[in-house]
Amino acid sequence: MTHWIAGQWIAGQGEAMQSVSPFNDEVIWQGDSATPAQVESAVSAARAAFSSWKKLTFTQREAHVLAFADKLEERAEQLAEVIAQETGKPLWETRTEAAAMAGKVAISIRAYHQRTGEHQREANGNQIVLRHRPLGVMAVFGPYNFPGHLPNGHIVPSLLAGNTVVFKPSDLTPLTGEFVMRLWQESGLPEGVINLVQGGKETGIALAQAKGIDGLLFTGSANTGHILHRQFAGQPDKMLALEMGGNNPMVISEQFGDVDATVYTILQSAFISAGQRCTCARRLYVPQGEAGDALLEKLVSATQAIVIDEPFAEPAPFMGPQISKQAADHILAAQANLLSLGGKALLEGKSQGFAFVSPAIIDVTNISALPDEEYFGPLLQVIRYQGLEQAVALANDTRYGLSAGLISTDDDEWAYFVDNIRAGIVNRNRQLTGASGDAPFGGPGASGNLRPSAFYAADYCAYPMASMEGSEPLLPATLSPGLKL
Amino acid sequence: MTHWIAGQWIAGQGEAMQSVSPFNDEVIWQGDSATPAQVESAVSAARAAFSSWKKLTFTQREAHVLAFADKLEERAEQLAEVIAQETGKPLWETRTEAAAMAGKVAISIRAYHQRTGEHQREANGNQIVLRHRPLGVMAVFGPYNFPGHLPNGHIVPSLLAGNTVVFKPSDLTPLTGEFVMRLWQESGLPEGVINLVQGGKETGIALAQAKGIDGLLFTGSANTGHILHRQFAGQPDKMLALEMGGNNPMVISEQFGDVDATVYTILQSAFISAGQRCTCARRLYVPQGEAGDALLEKLVSATQAIVIDEPFAEPAPFMGPQISKQAADHILAAQANLLSLGGKALLEGKSQGFAFVSPAIIDVTNISALPDEEYFGPLLQVIRYQGLEQAVALANDTRYGLSAGLISTDDDEWAYFVDNIRAGIVNRNRQLTGASGDAPFGGPGASGNLRPSAFYAADYCAYPMASMEGSEPLLPATLSPGLKL
Repeated sequence: MTHWIAGQWIAGQGEAMQSVSPFNDEVIWQGDSATPAQVESAVSAARAAFSSWKKLTFTQREAHVLAFADKLEERAEQLAEVIAQETGKPLWETRTEAAAMAGKVAISIRAYHQRTGEHQREANGNQIVLRHRPLGVMAVFGPYNFPGHLPNGHIVPSLLAGNTVVFKPSDLTPLTGEFVMRLWQESGLPEGVINLVQGGKETGIALAQAKGIDGLLFTGSANTGHILHRQFAGQPDKMLALEMGGNNPMVISEQFGDVDATVYTILQSAFISAGQRCTCARRLYVPQGEAGDALLEKLVSATQAIVIDEPFAEPAPFMGPQISKQAADHILAAQANLLSLGGKALLEGKSQGFAFVSPAIIDVTNISALPDEEYFGPLLQVIRYQGLEQAVALANDTRYGLSAGLISTDDDEWAYFVDNIRAGIVNRNRQLTGASGDAPFGGPGASGNLRPSAFYAADYCAYPMASMEGSEPLLPATLSPGLKL
Repeated sequence: MTHWIAGQWIAGQGEAMQSVSPFNDEVIWQGDSATPAQVESAVSAARAAFSSWKKLTFTQREAHVLAFADKLEERAEQLAEVIAQETGKPLWETRTEAAAMAGKVAISIRAYHQRTGEHQREANGNQIVLRHRPLGVMAVFGPYNFPGHLPNGHIVPSLLAGNTVVFKPSDLTPLTGEFVMRLWQESGLPEGVINLVQGGKETGIALAQAKGIDGLLFTGSANTGHILHRQFAGQPDKMLALEMGGNNPMVISEQFGDVDATVYTILQSAFISAGQRCTCARRLYVPQGEAGDALLEKLVSATQAIVIDEPFAEPAPFMGPQISKQAADHILAAQANLLSLGGKALLEGKSQGFAFVSPAIIDVTNISALPDEEYFGPLLQVIRYQGLEQAVALANDTRYGLSAGLISTDDDEWAYFVDNIRAGIVNRNRQLTGASGDAPFGGPGASGNLRPSAFYAADYCAYPMASMEGSEPLLPATLSPGLKL
């Protein structure tokens, strides 16, 4: 039983699909995808549940979500194993993903009150009241790299605000999607408040085009995000929140400080999750000259030493495989393209069986027209530069704007960087892939549609309702000019 | 000299245009509209000014905006006269508009800090810093009904956040646009930080399609707003904030309380600004039966007694003319259509010369398919109902969702209303056209694209930049699994 609609698990009537562990090709999930008619029934179920769900008090909805958080904590290890099995990410990493999902609940409750919620004050005999209201039915499209955490960051604030949800996981991670839905079910969520539909493109198109949805919250590629934006043209009333990719620069200043600490920070930025985080460093700006040469040498040797293995291997690996063989081939093709354009391999990435690809470092300084693409894997491009100004100008030369980093011990350089870089996540001397859970998340340009998520997800899950209230209509002592009763 | 570009007043090279007082057909402003090339130069000027404007500290930008507020206060009476001359609104009303413009500055400063601004905390040896960054060049499209206040509500927060602006007033109110720009100039704003282009559709299209803008902040009709939304398809990175119209219901419960106070509240809701406020009550739900009959009788007689006159007349009128002869004709045509569909005139609106139209009250209860249109003038539709549930269901039967009101002394009725009505401004026993300046403003459905303005305008004038910062890169005591240096 593949789809969870109106509280029932039902079989799909669409194309057969399966989920395959990318580290050993084992089939771990099979099902039939949802047809457009089944998607419609999921939207209808969410619509039907909306009228009662939105009527609950916030405290009642909060209690449901907290019960889910309890389930998440209780089953955290199992969840971490499921994610590891399906994505190939090391178990230590998927444990942090499971923990982040439980942590998201408290953060979202705080964000609800701080960004939206309800406020009241008195002014001139009027009650000035600000409430926030849910939008209705939210379609949530999950990605494969954090198949638990990222949709959870849409689902939890949606529900807290009083919306109901139709969730479509990535067709590469249906098992994780289903597992999390079962936790919601076990936690006692009323029927239809979340509905799960599994499927690929056809299912996704049906859900995005469903008349009954009031919003679509998407995390995924810039390409799909732009298609969705065009599909939503002329429907300004539908909330569309797009969290897309980045071509993220990391600038190593001449004052980078400790070499080992710098190399460590680069590894954590470029190769964590096998390069499959949207905040990963893709372009590394290294100063020309000896210090930069030495740093790169150390970076290459440390990268060569990275342990790559299956998620449950002992000793634990730093990197697992790409999400699929196709994704692995895509990264290798991107590397081949960079080399054909004049890039120089400092360390060539290689296929290592199944979906494994070893990390690559390519010096692309000599490529005159460097493609502005997101390579969603362990492929780091190095550009040698002279002077911070040039580095920042090059760093900003992208249509994206998700994350950017500076390694520098110099406060003035940081001040310059933060004033001039164009990105939504801008870290100093910390891995680019680190972001605080209670901060907003998102960036300008092709990285999104300026509906930042994480702490600001509360904003797009509700609309404000502003009221002036009095207990009875009033006749003022002096009427407006030109009126008499 | 018609356009203010890069600090210079220059002549237009496009079509001739003029502004005509709607109460006496006097020509009060003439000029030539901006050609697409001139629009481009305004956008370039804003882009050029952006790099230095955004580099100012907030306090420096705040000082510029406060200097403008001083000018506004100093010249408030003159501004009120200009708006009255150009729109025909009574002087007492345009004085409140001028005052609201000055008041907007302090509110926007508060909103900047509260909704965006900069925050910092320490966690685990990291500085967690949240900054907000301007988007770049904002195109601001103003409406004619509040030709000063509404664009000001976009311009002030845009500038505070560090954006620069290209402003196109409504082609019905170029004089007000120019007057306000001269106040900015006199206040010492640096060249190019705001640029003014005048014109109609061609100028507007050129500005909306200019590659160099990073956002478009629009107040106007749902029709134009939807066209803009389609034009921006596939450009998710451009901020589009649409404030459109409403077909706003006002429900009179059986427990409406004092008759005179109720009638007064309806008049203020339906006919203030000659019905040319986007929050005006358009549909009035009145209970069937004697109490409702008596209320309507009183409403009709009080409406007949409304003084309609030129803005500077003594004694002061409650209502002036429509913005133009064309707008007046449009309202009369809408009335004729309602009558032809089966509506019953409780009070027929009549042309009173120039752009004057006297207020109309049409009982449309018997129209089976009532058009869901915004009639932007003094045309109030009455619907008789039985039971609050029916009234709320009818009230919600609109694609819009801007404002809605309930007149009731019963707290339970209000609780039901506020839980079930779908609108962004929801008032109880207060005129629908009243909204608190420090509340967000906007509504769901065809009333906007869920980018509420007023206090929340700060949100769409900036994007968040979230940082984790440390003074140097760190090598932790224990490295991540699978890494060694």
